[in-house]
Amino acid sequence: MEETFVPFRGIKNDLKGRLLCYKQDWTGGFSAGIRILAPTTYIFFASAIPVISFGEQLERSTDGSLTAVQTLASTALCGIVHSLVGGQPLLILGVAEPTVLMYMFMYNFAKNRKDLGHKLFLAWTGWVCVWTSLLLFLLAVLGACSIINRFTRVAGELFGLLIAMLFMQQAIRGIVEEFGIPERENPEQTALPRSWRFGNGMFALVLSFGFLLTALKSRKARSWRYGTGWLRGFIADYGVPLMVLVWTAVSYVTVNDVPRGIPRRLFSPNSWSPGAYSNWTVIKEMVTVPPLYIVGAFVPATMIAVLYYFDHSVASQLAQQKEFNLKKPPSYHYDLLLLGFLVILCGLIGIPPSNGVIPQSPMHTKSLATLKHQLLHNKLVSTARKSISKNSSLSRLYRSIQEAYNEMQTPLVYQHQSTLGLKELKESSIQLASSTSYIDAPVNETLFDVEKEIDDLLPVEVKEQRFSNSLQSLMVGGCVAAMPLLKKIPPSVLWGYFAFMAIESLPGNQFWERILLLFTAPSRRYKVLEECHATFVETVPFKTIATFTLFQTVYLLVCFGVTWIPIAGVLFPLLIMLLVPVRQYLLPKFFKGDHLQDLDAAEYEEAASIAYYMTFEGQECQATATHIGDSEILDEITTRSRGEIRHIQSPKVSSTTPSSAGDMKP
Amino acid sequence: MEETFVPFRGIKNDLKGRLLCYKQDWTGGFSAGIRILAPTTYIFFASAIPVISFGEQLERSTDGSLTAVQTLASTALCGIVHSLVGGQPLLILGVAEPTVLMYMFMYNFAKNRKDLGHKLFLAWTGWVCVWTSLLLFLLAVLGACSIINRFTRVAGELFGLLIAMLFMQQAIRGIVEEFGIPERENPEQTALPRSWRFGNGMFALVLSFGFLLTALKSRKARSWRYGTGWLRGFIADYGVPLMVLVWTAVSYVTVNDVPRGIPRRLFSPNSWSPGAYSNWTVIKEMVTVPPLYIVGAFVPATMIAVLYYFDHSVASQLAQQKEFNLKKPPSYHYDLLLLGFLVILCGLIGIPPSNGVIPQSPMHTKSLATLKHQLLHNKLVSTARKSISKNSSLSRLYRSIQEAYNEMQTPLVYQHQSTLGLKELKESSIQLASSTSYIDAPVNETLFDVEKEIDDLLPVEVKEQRFSNSLQSLMVGGCVAAMPLLKKIPPSVLWGYFAFMAIESLPGNQFWERILLLFTAPSRRYKVLEECHATFVETVPFKTIATFTLFQTVYLLVCFGVTWIPIAGVLFPLLIMLLVPVRQYLLPKFFKGDHLQDLDAAEYEEAASIAYYMTFEGQECQATATHIGDSEILDEITTRSRGEIRHIQSPKVSSTTPSSAGDMKP
Repeated sequence: MEETFVPFRGIKNDLKGRLLCYKQDWTGGFSAGIRILAPTTYIFFASAIPVISFGEQLERSTDGSLTAVQTLASTALCGIVHSLVGGQPLLILGVAEPTVLMYMFMYNFAKNRKDLGHKLFLAWTGWVCVWTSLLLFLLAVLGACSIINRFTRVAGELFGLLIAMLFMQQAIRGIVEEFGIPERENPEQTALPRSWRFGNGMFALVLSFGFLLTALKSRKARSWRYGTGWLRGFIADYGVPLMVLVWTAVSYVTVNDVPRGIPRRLFSPNSWSPGAYSNWTVIKEMVTVPPLYIVGAFVPATMIAVLYYFDHSVASQLAQQKEFNLKKPPSYHYDLLLLGFLVILCGLIGIPPSNGVIPQSPMHTKSLATLKHQLLHNKLVSTARKSISKNSSLSRLYRSIQEAYNEMQTPLVYQHQSTLGLKELKESSIQLASSTSYIDAPVNETLFDVEKEIDDLLPVEVKEQRFSNSLQSLMVGGCVAAMPLLKKIPPSVLWGYFAFMAIESLPGNQFWERILLLFTAPSRRYKVLEECHATFVETVPFKTIATFTLFQTVYLLVCFGVTWIPIAGVLFPLLIMLLVPVRQYLLPKFFKGDHLQDLDAAEYEEAASIAYYMTFEGQECQATATHIGDSEILDEITTRSRGEIRHIQSPKVSSTTPSSAGDMKP
Repeated sequence: MEETFVPFRGIKNDLKGRLLCYKQDWTGGFSAGIRILAPTTYIFFASAIPVISFGEQLERSTDGSLTAVQTLASTALCGIVHSLVGGQPLLILGVAEPTVLMYMFMYNFAKNRKDLGHKLFLAWTGWVCVWTSLLLFLLAVLGACSIINRFTRVAGELFGLLIAMLFMQQAIRGIVEEFGIPERENPEQTALPRSWRFGNGMFALVLSFGFLLTALKSRKARSWRYGTGWLRGFIADYGVPLMVLVWTAVSYVTVNDVPRGIPRRLFSPNSWSPGAYSNWTVIKEMVTVPPLYIVGAFVPATMIAVLYYFDHSVASQLAQQKEFNLKKPPSYHYDLLLLGFLVILCGLIGIPPSNGVIPQSPMHTKSLATLKHQLLHNKLVSTARKSISKNSSLSRLYRSIQEAYNEMQTPLVYQHQSTLGLKELKESSIQLASSTSYIDAPVNETLFDVEKEIDDLLPVEVKEQRFSNSLQSLMVGGCVAAMPLLKKIPPSVLWGYFAFMAIESLPGNQFWERILLLFTAPSRRYKVLEECHATFVETVPFKTIATFTLFQTVYLLVCFGVTWIPIAGVLFPLLIMLLVPVRQYLLPKFFKGDHLQDLDAAEYEEAASIAYYMTFEGQECQATATHIGDSEILDEITTRSRGEIRHIQSPKVSSTTPSSAGDMKP
């Protein structure tokens, strides 16, 4: 994307591109059939559980002004609107941790003001949303998204680690609170003696650690040795919601003589009770906010606008990485404009706004890539089998596969980028085949392993459509109705979930990996090289890595420190944004250009692992990649925290046994 | 050892052999200097913690007749006697789980008899011990130990897994009991309301799981990436006692308003209080036991004798495996005779007897091998450095190393087996050196990596002496005096320790590994081949493995079931011993000889891992072995459960890149 700031040009381009494929966005979704439900439910759980947790966090920090009902409603509302009229339907919207944090700062400010207080808090945030959306309009119209390529790893990963720290802080704080008297008055529970509070706290520890450990284990189910393939896949995909269910069930297994309040359950109000709708009419109270505060609302609004501009764009960017090989155009400016509308809408009905979320957005694209892969795979395998049964030669077989592949391609009016299809892959395969000189002989299945060969041929492709996003948003909306059921979840499980999210976001974050590298014993640093690793480990001197990482760590701690400042903490997004110019103008003065390039590579370039004896190099990575299931490959090549696709470099030292890999395949 | 049953011949041979090296057993220990304390404290903790746990278990099952004071006293007493006058000083004695189980059966029998009851229980067990020791004398005199080579894996591993199941059962039962009213009257605790009992139970869950997880992690510290080498080694060696300390400390971190009884602490009496010695004078009461019961004591006595004959011999066998390369002779018969004396001694003073324990005995030998390795290493490195500084040629260098090595060898009158010394290793090294044609040129340190080359030259050797065993027994005795301190440990930590021992005993147990193999998805079985694995995986058809394993599992479950039968459970050692003839006469009728041989290999033969492409075969195992520290190698080659040395086979398919390993070493 070129950097251009002509007003409206960005929005116009986006609209032009997306309108051309709008119809196909829907028909494509329906044509996928029942299988579209797998990515949909996957993303639904990934959206809903954190949003419920955030609701519980907000509920405690805003004395009940905002609860899980509001966060779920916002996520559902914004999600539905975005999936219907938004630009990039791969982008998932939801209430995110920074939003929760900003609302906590604002509540802490508002509750002690005589003229605002608890009563006018939501009305005041309504004004904040008004200002925020105006700023977002301005940014969208002026084409600010054309500079998103300047949002490099440094800023993104620091932001990611800050969020992880905040998650972990909330998890610890939540568990400690389980030992104390509940902050909100609840006659049943304050009546509990100290002894039960102690038991409640210990039970909370058991539940949250139990959840954390089992959830972490379940994520690795795909590489388990035991159980059938579909069971492993099911546990890996749905392990986290499953564990929420399991540990909620465990929380009911207490002996008969334990009183009902142990363990505590979610505080959120029942959405079916009459009082639950009192704060949906905030717009009426907005006029009663004193003018000074209406003007003052501009300060947090700037911060939220900066935050959303950054977060929304980066989430969208990660959902559309080059390696996903998307066919449809992006829509950064128009989506930012739409976000402005959504913010004002949420503000006026007194719910916290949603924005594009990480890692759910790239997770969404990834799950759709798996789906498309399965659909293509099935079609091509049946074509190949048919062709083989007709005794075709290898070249004719490839031709029929190519034809079937072309049939599956959507004929798009707007061709976003040249199709990186089967073609080049096929050519190399034919070359290999002709070298072994059976190109024109009839092929049979022992000679040509259909399943495997076709998997090797298929490029990464994504089922781009609006159906999965809109359906998952509707399901989140359904959660509001299911609130009486959700209230059975003990918050301690959710604290475990916070810790889980914090830990899960670490691998793949190069900043974190560099911090670990600093603590690695010098004699063991070679072990990093044995795994697939980022290129900087080899190209940048250790001292430079250390200096750079220390700078980032200090910056991170300053950001974290700022969030602790009672009201000025609201300024933390500014520090994150400040990293963009710091990276561009200040850092090059202290670090060599090449080093900065490697430490802050925009794409996740990875070197293949270096086995101890260099002769093996490259082959091991291959060996892993070719013998695990489809989705396991996608799991492997995608880092979890940012959901980025890793780009594995070809090994630098050429292998001394190049043919063995082909020969020895069983 | 030949199978001969001439009375007293075995004992005479043992005594003759051990007397010749008795003096050296002591001088050798003192000459090792301060470093002998490392293996000593290591084994002390490995002995003391389980014995305390067993004491707590006995205390609950015998209504306080026997406590940790008695189990510690027995372990210390038997250990000191054995290390002073026993045959094989590498063998560690202690109260073991089967003994505890037998005492539980006996108490359950005795407590309901009018003429015995709680009061005469210990007196009656005195008689059981008298009979047991008579049977042991008989076995020792008749040379029963000469058939120990017939105690194959099948019996040993089934026994190991049964013990693991009993440990796990005790861990679960112990934690469940923490939720209930303590069985023994304790005015302070029965007064606690339900609410505190619930809190106590939950706290117990936290403590035991916390201990279990951290202890399991700490065992793997040596392969951590972080921290310095000595810290990693320290945590790996002393992680378990360290974690007992840490989690005991955690149990004190409760908030001020938690009453003193939460969490519960060890029940064992203070050994300094006047009442603690009431049951040391059991001998006086032995005459009051009704004659019928004196005769009846023969039944449990037979079982205990069978058990001790099996357990004591197997523990001794594992401490003296061929691969440890021991220089001093074994002493099976004489040690069994001595055990008879120790059993009667313990019986007469009313404490449960000790016998040779697994895995502590092989752990002891292993830690002494590490010590000897360090001593030899230091001496030879300094010799080599001196030689290099004199500009010697490579052949002269090797000669001086050989001389220094010979100096370190103990001149033994009784030469048990031919010394497998530096010689052959040296020759192959010289061959390698001469092929690169610098055999007579002066060497320097860049050409000749002294530290590494000497590590490669050194064979496994063990510092065989009596000092470490006697000192650790004295330290266990010190624990009796330190009882007021030990009472601070909460039993929930000990339940965690039971679970830890059960889990730690599994890896290396081929029976367990075969059970896991049955549950491995067929598509993932190849993963087993990727690791170092037992040969049977390759040589025996899966169906045969499955049948054999199912037979063993059913047998195991029958044994476990028998331990649940109230009083007849006392017969379970018979079932274990029965496996020896079953293996020898029954199994060959159902399985092919070759298959049985591989499934029940007496030595732990292991095939090198098969990397996916066969070309790598064998090299990977080598790569791992050459680049980790000394003790890490010993950790690697020794399986933990039985403490056996694994015997890595040379790869069957010869590598296609044989020279790369040598060439590419950095």
